[in-house]
Amino acid sequence: MLIKDLPTPHLVLDRRKLESNQARMRARAAELGVRLRPHGKTAKSAEVVRRAVGDGPLAVTVSTLREAHYFAENGIRDIVHANCIAPNRLPEAAALLRDGVDLAITIDSPDVAAEVVRVGRGQGVRFAVMLEVDVGEHRGGVAPGSEALLAAARILHEGGMEVRGVLAHAGHTYGCTDADAVAVIAEAERAGAVSAAERIRATGIPCREVSVGSTPGALFARHLEGVTEFRPGVYMFMDLFQAGVGCCGLDDIALSVLSSVINHRTTEGTAHIDAGGLALSKDRSTASQPTDRHFGLVTDVAGSPFPNLTVEAVHQEHGRLGGPGGVPFAVLPIGARVRVLPNHACMTAAMYERYAVVDGTELGEEQPVVEFWDRVNGW
Amino acid sequence: MLIKDLPTPHLVLDRRKLESNQARMRARAAELGVRLRPHGKTAKSAEVVRRAVGDGPLAVTVSTLREAHYFAENGIRDIVHANCIAPNRLPEAAALLRDGVDLAITIDSPDVAAEVVRVGRGQGVRFAVMLEVDVGEHRGGVAPGSEALLAAARILHEGGMEVRGVLAHAGHTYGCTDADAVAVIAEAERAGAVSAAERIRATGIPCREVSVGSTPGALFARHLEGVTEFRPGVYMFMDLFQAGVGCCGLDDIALSVLSSVINHRTTEGTAHIDAGGLALSKDRSTASQPTDRHFGLVTDVAGSPFPNLTVEAVHQEHGRLGGPGGVPFAVLPIGARVRVLPNHACMTAAMYERYAVVDGTELGEEQPVVEFWDRVNGW
Repeated sequence: MLIKDLPTPHLVLDRRKLESNQARMRARAAELGVRLRPHGKTAKSAEVVRRAVGDGPLAVTVSTLREAHYFAENGIRDIVHANCIAPNRLPEAAALLRDGVDLAITIDSPDVAAEVVRVGRGQGVRFAVMLEVDVGEHRGGVAPGSEALLAAARILHEGGMEVRGVLAHAGHTYGCTDADAVAVIAEAERAGAVSAAERIRATGIPCREVSVGSTPGALFARHLEGVTEFRPGVYMFMDLFQAGVGCCGLDDIALSVLSSVINHRTTEGTAHIDAGGLALSKDRSTASQPTDRHFGLVTDVAGSPFPNLTVEAVHQEHGRLGGPGGVPFAVLPIGARVRVLPNHACMTAAMYERYAVVDGTELGEEQPVVEFWDRVNGW
Repeated sequence: MLIKDLPTPHLVLDRRKLESNQARMRARAAELGVRLRPHGKTAKSAEVVRRAVGDGPLAVTVSTLREAHYFAENGIRDIVHANCIAPNRLPEAAALLRDGVDLAITIDSPDVAAEVVRVGRGQGVRFAVMLEVDVGEHRGGVAPGSEALLAAARILHEGGMEVRGVLAHAGHTYGCTDADAVAVIAEAERAGAVSAAERIRATGIPCREVSVGSTPGALFARHLEGVTEFRPGVYMFMDLFQAGVGCCGLDDIALSVLSSVINHRTTEGTAHIDAGGLALSKDRSTASQPTDRHFGLVTDVAGSPFPNLTVEAVHQEHGRLGGPGGVPFAVLPIGARVRVLPNHACMTAAMYERYAVVDGTELGEEQPVVEFWDRVNGW
């Protein structure tokens, strides 16, 4: 099957760009001297994660327990669940441990530490726990210098659980638009996480891992001394938002939505495609960047962008194409295929059950679909 | 199982509110003298659609061919696919016809009419076609008075296809905030659709159906003379956006996302829940209304809203609770369940594979989960 024969809308993944992005991050991990634990929340695909680690340790980060189940079933059993777990999901995490999965969970308060001890003892498992440290985003985590950090570590340790390490996520790198600004935040993330681990170790409690991570931070950190692993995820696919941060060029974006032109509105200079709010997601994260891509930038089937042609508006199953100069109707007749580069790969990919994997951009609309890879959604 | 025992995040559907909303729309159909062909794009669930039609004809509207397959497999075989079909999907539509499904497709141009004839003849089927009329939204459709309308009808008719009818969607009722404004648009929709059908009939081509529909238009139209069916969908669940239009009260919203508090940020007066951009969608449609609900309004487990407490911001798996006065930490400890009413039910429901159906709001957090209903996603 060729790309031009796929039913639309369809999620498409360019394997060459994927593998190039993945190789770049493995080189960064080697350069920085940290283990790469790729975040599976973007791809949610075992095929993608296996390629991400290359010859390195087969390890993954997840954002849901559903992902943990899926990766474990697919042979990737060294897992960190990197967001603070809802207490009601602890028995399910315990079941994964009993199945022999090396799962670490994340918490950020003494209250939940006590609950982890209670459930761990009740279920007969020793939870491995990452303590989340707030390094400036103010989403999750306690301050590296806080008493709450040590209190949580002590409750876990004395309760027979493992303090596996500390974990930080400097999500505020997403507000940057250049490498220097990212590097400043990445250093604060590193320093905060390392100091938190040192404070725990100073109380006599082992604290093996120091885990940081975001795609911008991983790419632009000056050094990661004291850090043991990083957890970038979106770098594998990249997207318009990451391009706006400066993490990649448009040509590095491996993910797109193949779609068809379904009408022309010549009076308005617009057209509609069969990819709307569901097929693209309603993510508008480039709205806060210098170049707003609306709901996505439009390329031809080969992947070459139409200058300034974006999906300006969406309804559930309609996307409206437009931009300065209007839609080039002659080259985009009704029925023509386009590809839409996403604002935010994690959100767009989540609308699909599988990837059509293409390999051979230079072949244009004749490029073959070489494989279909599954992905897991939900919770 | 009780609602409070569901793992979070989870999609929850209140059956009493659903059935009340459905009964209201059946009463409107009877009052207006039109057939109700509920739009399945919101619920994407055979259980829900069967309840929607009551004792009336078992008919549905769909927004994707995947929905058409699903409903047909579940015994609902009188189907209108109400958005302009991408030409590449015509063979799949033909296969449904050959399987005996009474599927009507929608187009809005002479070019696609010619393609429908070509594929219909090639596949040995007689497509039933709805011609989309633009009644002011300028998304799909041709003007009721246009030559293109008659040209498309003629091409289909002379090519041996069936002109089943005309179809309009006044999506611009969504910009209204009161019933009178909706009624004006609904009348323009009715008049435009009826006049289009009359022009086609005047050329000697049969044109049986005149189909209109949106939830606001269906609720507030003064009369629908000449219309044969309407296609509202979101009314079954309602949502914050529909409440902002004036279609319902907050207490009529049948859909919510059950979620857990995962941390407190006492300094900022905020907290986070385990429902973020994926669990809620990134729909921000109430941003344009007088009352902006951000990413959703928060209620307790029983369904009573916390005044002004909304999901102010989302990350992929985190939602930040906040509002004037801050989070009531004492009544929402870490681990507590809340429900989030969605901005846009169609977008939120699409993130889930099933509904936990509850029935008995007065029982609060002791209300039982009486059933799980499946739904279909994707294309």
